[in-house]
Amino acid sequence: MRLLFLMFWFMLQLFINAQTLFSPNKNLKLIFELNKDKEPIYTLLFKDETVIKKSKLGILLKELPSFDNDFIIERYESTEFDEVWKPVWGEVKEIRNNYSELKVTLKQNKVKGRNLILTFRLFDDGLGFRYEFPSSRNLHYFVVTDELTEFNLTEDHSAFWIPGDYDSQEYKYTLSKLSEVDALKGNNANEIGVKSIFDKYGVQTPLMLKTSKPLYINIHEAVLVNYPAMHLLIDAEENKLSAHLVPDVLGSKAYLQAPEKTPWRTIIVSDKAEEILMSKLILNLNEPCTFEDVSWIYPQKYIGIWWEMHVGTGSWNYSDTNNVKLNQTDWSKLKPNGRHAANTKRTKEYIDFAAKHGFKGVLVEGWNVGWEDWFGNWKEEVFDFVTPYPDFNLGELSEYAKAKNVKLIMHHETSASVANYERRMDEAYRLMNKFGYDAVKTGYVGRIIPRGEHHDGQSMVNHFIHTAKTTAKYKIMLNAHESVRPTGLHRTYPNWLANEAARGNEFNAWSSGNLPEHETILPFTRLMGGPMDYTPGIFQIKLDYFIPGKKEQVKTTLTKQLALYVTMYSPLQMAADYPESYERFPDAFQFIKDVDVDWDDTRILKAEPGDYIITARKSKNSDNWFLGAITDEQKREFTISLNFLDSGKNYKARIYSDADNAHWEINPMGYKIGEFIVTSETSLKLKLAESGGTAISFFPATSEESSQIKKY
Amino acid sequence: MRLLFLMFWFMLQLFINAQTLFSPNKNLKLIFELNKDKEPIYTLLFKDETVIKKSKLGILLKELPSFDNDFIIERYESTEFDEVWKPVWGEVKEIRNNYSELKVTLKQNKVKGRNLILTFRLFDDGLGFRYEFPSSRNLHYFVVTDELTEFNLTEDHSAFWIPGDYDSQEYKYTLSKLSEVDALKGNNANEIGVKSIFDKYGVQTPLMLKTSKPLYINIHEAVLVNYPAMHLLIDAEENKLSAHLVPDVLGSKAYLQAPEKTPWRTIIVSDKAEEILMSKLILNLNEPCTFEDVSWIYPQKYIGIWWEMHVGTGSWNYSDTNNVKLNQTDWSKLKPNGRHAANTKRTKEYIDFAAKHGFKGVLVEGWNVGWEDWFGNWKEEVFDFVTPYPDFNLGELSEYAKAKNVKLIMHHETSASVANYERRMDEAYRLMNKFGYDAVKTGYVGRIIPRGEHHDGQSMVNHFIHTAKTTAKYKIMLNAHESVRPTGLHRTYPNWLANEAARGNEFNAWSSGNLPEHETILPFTRLMGGPMDYTPGIFQIKLDYFIPGKKEQVKTTLTKQLALYVTMYSPLQMAADYPESYERFPDAFQFIKDVDVDWDDTRILKAEPGDYIITARKSKNSDNWFLGAITDEQKREFTISLNFLDSGKNYKARIYSDADNAHWEINPMGYKIGEFIVTSETSLKLKLAESGGTAISFFPATSEESSQIKKY
Repeated sequence: MRLLFLMFWFMLQLFINAQTLFSPNKNLKLIFELNKDKEPIYTLLFKDETVIKKSKLGILLKELPSFDNDFIIERYESTEFDEVWKPVWGEVKEIRNNYSELKVTLKQNKVKGRNLILTFRLFDDGLGFRYEFPSSRNLHYFVVTDELTEFNLTEDHSAFWIPGDYDSQEYKYTLSKLSEVDALKGNNANEIGVKSIFDKYGVQTPLMLKTSKPLYINIHEAVLVNYPAMHLLIDAEENKLSAHLVPDVLGSKAYLQAPEKTPWRTIIVSDKAEEILMSKLILNLNEPCTFEDVSWIYPQKYIGIWWEMHVGTGSWNYSDTNNVKLNQTDWSKLKPNGRHAANTKRTKEYIDFAAKHGFKGVLVEGWNVGWEDWFGNWKEEVFDFVTPYPDFNLGELSEYAKAKNVKLIMHHETSASVANYERRMDEAYRLMNKFGYDAVKTGYVGRIIPRGEHHDGQSMVNHFIHTAKTTAKYKIMLNAHESVRPTGLHRTYPNWLANEAARGNEFNAWSSGNLPEHETILPFTRLMGGPMDYTPGIFQIKLDYFIPGKKEQVKTTLTKQLALYVTMYSPLQMAADYPESYERFPDAFQFIKDVDVDWDDTRILKAEPGDYIITARKSKNSDNWFLGAITDEQKREFTISLNFLDSGKNYKARIYSDADNAHWEINPMGYKIGEFIVTSETSLKLKLAESGGTAISFFPATSEESSQIKKY
Repeated sequence: MRLLFLMFWFMLQLFINAQTLFSPNKNLKLIFELNKDKEPIYTLLFKDETVIKKSKLGILLKELPSFDNDFIIERYESTEFDEVWKPVWGEVKEIRNNYSELKVTLKQNKVKGRNLILTFRLFDDGLGFRYEFPSSRNLHYFVVTDELTEFNLTEDHSAFWIPGDYDSQEYKYTLSKLSEVDALKGNNANEIGVKSIFDKYGVQTPLMLKTSKPLYINIHEAVLVNYPAMHLLIDAEENKLSAHLVPDVLGSKAYLQAPEKTPWRTIIVSDKAEEILMSKLILNLNEPCTFEDVSWIYPQKYIGIWWEMHVGTGSWNYSDTNNVKLNQTDWSKLKPNGRHAANTKRTKEYIDFAAKHGFKGVLVEGWNVGWEDWFGNWKEEVFDFVTPYPDFNLGELSEYAKAKNVKLIMHHETSASVANYERRMDEAYRLMNKFGYDAVKTGYVGRIIPRGEHHDGQSMVNHFIHTAKTTAKYKIMLNAHESVRPTGLHRTYPNWLANEAARGNEFNAWSSGNLPEHETILPFTRLMGGPMDYTPGIFQIKLDYFIPGKKEQVKTTLTKQLALYVTMYSPLQMAADYPESYERFPDAFQFIKDVDVDWDDTRILKAEPGDYIITARKSKNSDNWFLGAITDEQKREFTISLNFLDSGKNYKARIYSDADNAHWEINPMGYKIGEFIVTSETSLKLKLAESGGTAISFFPATSEESSQIKKY
C-alpha cells in the first residue's frame, strides 16, 4: 500500500511537473515547475508570502534550437549540504554553508541528445540558481544570444539603483520605485566619460529592493566566470526584471563549450536589513580556494601617492606634453612640470610615514612613463609597466622600502588597453618580483581595446580572472579598479583582495562628489559581491585647503571617515589623505592606526539602506573590537548595546565622534574623542551629525586602565 | 640675371606645382604635382613611356579634416642615397641600396598646424612611396578610414591575381585581364574555410602585371607596421587600381598617433621578367636589423612529422573525441586513436633520420594537447602550448635530440585564437628554451579571436611583429603560417625566417591541389615580400601509395620538386616527404642533402611568370653553385649558358632531370641523374617535362674527377 502510495506520489509529481524545495529553517520556499508551454518556471516565497512570482528561465542560442520551451523533466535530485569553512581572510572566522539543493535535469522534445540542468540552492538567507550544460551528443560548442531569466516581483518595489551600463558602475545611487527608473536622466552622469547605458529601464546588480512590508530583496550573481555580467531590464508594467547580458562586439553574449555552467543568479531575502549585510550566500556559492600556499597573502592598510593627484596638487604625468610614444620618446629630455608626485624623494617621505605609523603598504601612482597622453585617446601602446620616469628610482626605492620593512604597492593603470596589458603582464610581474612589490593596483579607465568590447563582457570577465591567476603565479596580491563588479571569486582567488567597480571616495575630489547617503547604500549593493577599495580616511574634508578656491569636499564628517573602516569591509584599506593631514590630527589618526583589516567576527547592529549602518567587528586572533556607525544627510541618535563584547571583561572604549556642532558641510572636521571603560552590559548613546559617524575601538582594559579611566 | 632666372624657375616650380625625380640610371621618372583641386598626383614613366598615369594620393580621417585636397606645397627636399649593406642571410651576400628621393612637405588651407609628408624613393628597378604624419600642433591621435592611393594604368593589363581577402591568401592564381577579374567566382574557392572576400573586383598584393609591350609591373608594399594590409580594388572601366585597406571590427582602418609613417607602396618595373625577381627594392626600403647579436639565427633545412597528417596516415589529434577542455580533460584517460603521429618513438625515428642525413631541424606537429576539437569551433582556450600528449615525452626527446646534434622545431598552431596565444606566449617560449627548441612554426588557421578582427587588419599585423620581437627576446627563430603576407620585415627581424601566407605544397594532399603553373607564379607574387616555407621535396608524388584509392597527387614531377629548392627562395626549407620516401630514392635525395639555404649570389637566368623559372645560386662562403629550372603544364627546352660559374675552373655538375617520358600526371616520378664536367663556357640543354624540372649541383671538380668524369 505504501509502495503504491509512493509510486502514486512520484507519478503525481511528474504529472504535476512541480517540485518544492525548502531552506534549512523552512522560511524560504522554492517551487519549480513547467508551465503549459513547457517552459521552466520558478517561484520563491518567504514565510509563505510570495517574493518572486512565477518567473521564466531559459537560454537562447545562436543557430541552434534554444533552451526555451518544450521541456520534459528527466529527473530530480535533492540534496542537503551543511559544512563550516574558514576563509583565508574575511569578516568572520568561520562561515557555515548550509543549503537544500534541487537539481532538475531537463530534455526537450525538439532536440534529442542534449540536456539542460537547473540547479537551485536554497539557504536560510536566500536562493541561488544556475544553468548547467552537460557535455552531450548534441551539445558541444554553442553561442548564447540571450538569457530569459526573469525575476517577477509582486509589486512596484523601491530600489536603490544605478544605470545598467556595459562599461561603468561609477554612478550615484538613486532610490525610486522600479517603475520610475530612468537610466538616461541627466543627473546620472558619471564624470568618467566612458558610458554604455543600454536602456532607460536598465539597471545593474547588485540591486537592493525594499518592499512595502518591508522585505529586503537583493539580486546579484555569484561565480561570474566565462560569461558576461548580468544586468537587469525592468518591465514597469509587469513589475518584472529580466536578465540582460552584456554583448560582445558582434552582439553575441557568450561563447561556450559544454560542459559549462552559468554564474549563479542570487536572490537574498530577509525581513531584516541587517541580515542582508550578514549574508554569506554569495561566498558560499563560490568554489573553495585551491592554492596550496596562501602564506604570501595578507590583508593590509596602506597609504599612497594618489590623493594629491585627485585633489590636483600633484600630477600623474611627469611632463605636460600631450604626445608621447613608448620606445620613441626620450623621457629624460621631457620638460618636468614640477608637479610630478611620484618621485623618489616624495616616495621616501611616504615610506618613512608608513614605517613610523605601522602601515605595510605604500602605493605610488604615476611612477611609470606614459601618463602624458594616457586618457581619452584610445591609445593601445599606452603603458609598458616597466619603465619609470626619470625622477623615480626603482632600485633605490626598493632598497629603501626593504630597509624600513615597508612594501611598495605597484600601480598598473592599463587605460583599458587590455591586449597591451596581457602582452606585457609577465614582464611587469617579473619586475615586481625583482623590486620587492607584492601587491598591484590595476585600473581600466577608458574604452576597452580590443575595440568594441565592454568592461562587463565575457572576454573582459575572463581577463580579470586571468589577471588574478597570473598575479597568483607570481605571488602577487591584486586590487582591480574599473573592473567588472565582484561576485565572490575572492574565495577562490584569495590574492584578489579587492576591486573598485563603484563610485569611490575619489569622486569627491573633482566632481559633484558622493552624496551623504552613498556609504549607507554601498554595503547593500556593491559590497554584496566582494570588498571595495573605497579609499576612506580623508581628514582634510574641504579641499580649498590645498588649492584656494577649490570648491570640492568630501561629503562626510571626519569621524564618519573613521567609521568607514568598519562599515565598508575590505581586507585592503587605504589611509587615503596626505600624510600631512594625519600629522595635523594625530589623535583622530590613532583610530586608523589601530583598526584591523581582518576579522574573526562581525555584527551588523543596525542598518537601513540609504540611512545608516552600525557595524561591530572583532579583530582576528585578538580580543579587540571595533565599531563604526554612519548616517546619511540626517543627523541621528542611537542607543547601542555592547553585548557583543565578552562578558565579565572590562574594555577601554575610545570613542571618536562628531563634535556637537559638526555637520558635513558647515563643520565637517569638528570631532571629539573620549575614552571610557565599558563592558558587555553597557549601552552606548551614539550621536551622529549630518553625514556623520562614530568610530570606536575596544581594547581589553588593563587593571590600571580599569581603575584610572572613568566608566561609561 | 642668373639669380632672377633661378627665382623665376623656383617660382615656376611652385606655380606649376610639379616636381620630377629620376632613378639613378634615369630609366624611371616620377612626376609629382597638385591637380586643380590641389590633390596630390603622381605619375611614373619607364624609358619615357607612362607606366602609372596621373594617380591620386590621400588619406581620409575619421571626424577630422581629411588629407585629401586643398594642399599647398610647403617645400621639397631631394636627396640621393647609395650604400651597400649585407643581410644576415639572403639570396645574395651584398645588396646595393641606391635611390633618388623626393620628399614633399604639404599643408592644407583648411587646416592649420599640421602637415603631410609624401616621400618618393626611385630606384633603378622601381618606385616606393609613403605617407608621413609628423607630430604637429593639430595632429596627434587620428583614425584612418580610407586611403585614396591610386595606381592608374595605361591599359587593361594582364594580371596574375588572387582574390582580395581579409583572412586568406591560399588561392590558386588566375591569369586574366584586370577587367575580367571576378574574385567571387566559384573556382577561386580555397579549401581552408575562412574567407573574407570583400569585392568582386578586389585582388591582393603582390600583384604581378604584364602589359602588352611586355612591361612587367609588380605592386606591393614594404614595411607593413602598425597599419592594415593593402589590397587593391579594380575599376575595370578606368584601368585603375585603388588601395583597399583591411578594416577592423568597427570598420576603421588604422588607429595612429603622430609621428607616424604608412608602409611604402611599391611599384617594381622592368622590361625583363628576370629583373622583377632580382629586385631588392622591398628589402632596401626596410629598416636595418638592430639586434646586437645574431649568432643564434641560422638558415636550415628540416624534416618533420607533418606530411603524414596532410596525407592522412597520421593525425594531429591523439584521440578521436571531439570535445576537450584545457585544464579539465584528463588526457591520460583519452582513448588513443592509434594514428597519432607525434609520439616519442616516431619522433626519435625522425631525429635519427635527420642526424643521418645532415638535417638540422625536426618539426613535430600534434605534440601538444587540444587537437581533438581545434578547428571550426572558434574556440578561445584551444591550446596551451606547454602540455604534451601522453605519448610525447618532452624531456626524453630533448635529451635524444641534443645527443644527436639535432634541433626539434616547435609547433604553435594558435587556431587564430590570438589573444590566447599572446597570454601564453612567454610561458611557451620559456618551455622552448628549457627543452632546447630554438625555432617555432606558428599557425593561424581559423577565425581570429579577438572576434571580428581579420588576419590582415592592423591589430593582427602588429601581433605578427610582436611575435617576431618576443621570439627574438628568447633567441627563437620564427616561421609564421597563415600570417599576413610579408613585406620585407625580415631585414629588421632576421629571426623571422619565413612565412607561409600563400597556397603551399600541402594543398596537394587533400584538395584540388596546386596547378602546374603555381610555382612559376609564386616568386613573382608572394615571394616578392619575403621567403615562403613552401615545403617542397615530395618524392612520392601520387598519394594512393599511402592510402589506396586516394586520388590526390602533387602536380609536378619529382625533379621539379628538387628544383624548387633553388627557384623558391627560403632560408628555411623542408624536406617534406616521409623519410621512407627519401630512403627509396637516395640518389635523388642527394640533391636535397647537398642544396644550400643561404647564398652569396643569385642569377635569374630565365623567367616568365606563369611559364618557367631558371635560377642559379652560389652557396654562402663556398664555390658551389646550384641551379633549378621549372616549367608549368607545358614541357619546355632551354639552352642555358653556365657563364655564372667561375671561369677557368672545372665543376662537377650533377644533373637531376625528368626522365624522357616523365609527365606530372602520367609518370611524375620518372627521373634520371647524370654527372658531367662543365665550365663557365658550357651551354647546357635542359629538357623539362610537363610540370617538370631540372636541378643541378655544381661542385668544383677535383683533378681526379676532372679526369674521370666525362665532359658535358
